[in-house]
Amino acid sequence: MIQPTDKTLIPALQEKIDNLNKPKGSLGRLESLALQIGLIQHTLSPSLKHPCHILFGGDHGIEREGVSFSPREVTWQQMINYGKGGGGVNMFCRQHGFKLRVVDVGVDFDFNLTEQSHIIDRKIAHGTENFLYKSAMTEEQWNQALKVGAEQVDACYAEGCNIISFGEMGIANTSPSSILMHLFLDIPLQTCVGAGSGLDSDGVRHKYEVLQASVENSPFRSEVVSKAAIGSSVASDATRYFVGFEMAAAIGGMLRAAERGMVILVDGFIMTACMLAASRLDAAVLDYAVFGHCGDEGGHRLMLEGMGAQPLLHLGLRLGEGTGAICAYPIVQSAVNMINEMDNFAHAQITKYF
Amino acid sequence: MIQPTDKTLIPALQEKIDNLNKPKGSLGRLESLALQIGLIQHTLSPSLKHPCHILFGGDHGIEREGVSFSPREVTWQQMINYGKGGGGVNMFCRQHGFKLRVVDVGVDFDFNLTEQSHIIDRKIAHGTENFLYKSAMTEEQWNQALKVGAEQVDACYAEGCNIISFGEMGIANTSPSSILMHLFLDIPLQTCVGAGSGLDSDGVRHKYEVLQASVENSPFRSEVVSKAAIGSSVASDATRYFVGFEMAAAIGGMLRAAERGMVILVDGFIMTACMLAASRLDAAVLDYAVFGHCGDEGGHRLMLEGMGAQPLLHLGLRLGEGTGAICAYPIVQSAVNMINEMDNFAHAQITKYF
Repeated sequence: MIQPTDKTLIPALQEKIDNLNKPKGSLGRLESLALQIGLIQHTLSPSLKHPCHILFGGDHGIEREGVSFSPREVTWQQMINYGKGGGGVNMFCRQHGFKLRVVDVGVDFDFNLTEQSHIIDRKIAHGTENFLYKSAMTEEQWNQALKVGAEQVDACYAEGCNIISFGEMGIANTSPSSILMHLFLDIPLQTCVGAGSGLDSDGVRHKYEVLQASVENSPFRSEVVSKAAIGSSVASDATRYFVGFEMAAAIGGMLRAAERGMVILVDGFIMTACMLAASRLDAAVLDYAVFGHCGDEGGHRLMLEGMGAQPLLHLGLRLGEGTGAICAYPIVQSAVNMINEMDNFAHAQITKYF
Repeated sequence: MIQPTDKTLIPALQEKIDNLNKPKGSLGRLESLALQIGLIQHTLSPSLKHPCHILFGGDHGIEREGVSFSPREVTWQQMINYGKGGGGVNMFCRQHGFKLRVVDVGVDFDFNLTEQSHIIDRKIAHGTENFLYKSAMTEEQWNQALKVGAEQVDACYAEGCNIISFGEMGIANTSPSSILMHLFLDIPLQTCVGAGSGLDSDGVRHKYEVLQASVENSPFRSEVVSKAAIGSSVASDATRYFVGFEMAAAIGGMLRAAERGMVILVDGFIMTACMLAASRLDAAVLDYAVFGHCGDEGGHRLMLEGMGAQPLLHLGLRLGEGTGAICAYPIVQSAVNMINEMDNFAHAQITKYF
């Protein structure tokens, strides 16, 4: 059970922010961010400790329908590559001091765990079922994946982490993300489908047709799912019907991180879809969510708007892996530094601007 | 004389970026940034060294017309405050490892330079003249201020700096910035005038009326100035008629930084106006400019568009001091890390995505 943040602290936080040595509101988004993090940590002097990034990997049955530009084997190749430190995520983790955990929840490959010792093995299956025909996973697998995510977050928490981000590697996982967006926000599916890692317009049309057929074959309709009560079985059943193991683990991780009172840095399209699903399981998770990045895909912007989210960066990133979340970390640090380090008008002997 | 960057290096840089281990273009703005910095440094392996921030201070004759929400004395009070480390700029400089230089070019206050030893004294006058009636500064003062800026950049360069940002403290300096935007881009003055540090709608209307009268009283018209040849005396005469000493010094600093082949991080509205003016003195300066931040004011966005600039951040900052430039530094670092540290497809043994 996630505790919503205690809003009674807002006036005190706002007063502290307004008395910092600057025109009121002049640090823009940093001010609202400092307020949110103060609320999450229930303090006027928040701090960020031991940032961690958990990257979950998994393959998707729907990939067999040719919905992705990149072939399935890229999932396991990249999972190995992260161990060599050559991925985008490695670079950003190094830059911003994130500890990286790479977790196999459902990759369709048997890693040599002696050679690939950086991969944490929590494999549930060699990829999900093809949701064009049936549910991607069973209820048991879904619960298992949620638990994997929660356990990984607990491991970070035990090390002293209070800010966490999630990433994913799973070829074809923009497909379930588009469907979650369609179902939960009742936005026409066509608007939710994009080019993923590089489809051309024919490819996007084919992807849309496959996803449309998948939704039609499924028991779920956006008019119903979007109106289902938060925490109802409809929300979790619809989610597990489509998502991959890596996404389910991220959802479990997000819910646990919020329970633990951690700041959750949310990455791009896929992780935003996971946060959307998480918020339909427990709405309070959103109190803990800081949206790192909005990509160029119209769908991502619409999904963020649908959640009332204000992403920090707009850099046209679409690599995944969690890179958009980690890149936003220095902005979060700036917000925390602001509320802690900036002098106030009285102490600095400055004529108050207003 | 600024050397334009050597565009013949583009294909080699683009090839290196395209072969990094990621879908082509998937690191968005970081990719174009890496290309620009590679061009500036004429290398496939750029690096950032000893970042410096120069904050110039100066007062404005036009402040006497009530065009600013904040009173004139805030300029000197804040200049002193930077020495105590309590300003926004101090905090961001600490966070990102910038060396800060605070330079008095024209503040209307006699600092005690023993007590305020952090202030570099290059005072030209106790503020500019009131441009409602006459030119803000003489040609001699203008040249002096340009030289102050150039010398400060040289000092940074001598320390090994290859990336520099500029900031300003000068109550009322959104006023000359709006006029530069109007004159150089031939955009109606009304569109260029905003709330500055916090004017209400009556205040904005008064500010607009004062600035409109100032332009009418001056020898300059946007139809003419916007079409004047780059490097012509019209551009420099129009600029010095309106700007403050801190802005003139920033313009001189930008021009020198480009001559030195340094990356120039451009801050918000006022520094963007200075870069606009600098680009009318020597267009090649733009090759070296990385625009850090676009604020919420419509005018700033329009000015950036008028210059073909793509700012890195949109965080609603309007503090000035150069904070929007410094906040963008980790993004620039990410771009440089990407091109240097990210593995390529061949070496990482990944199926190339396209």
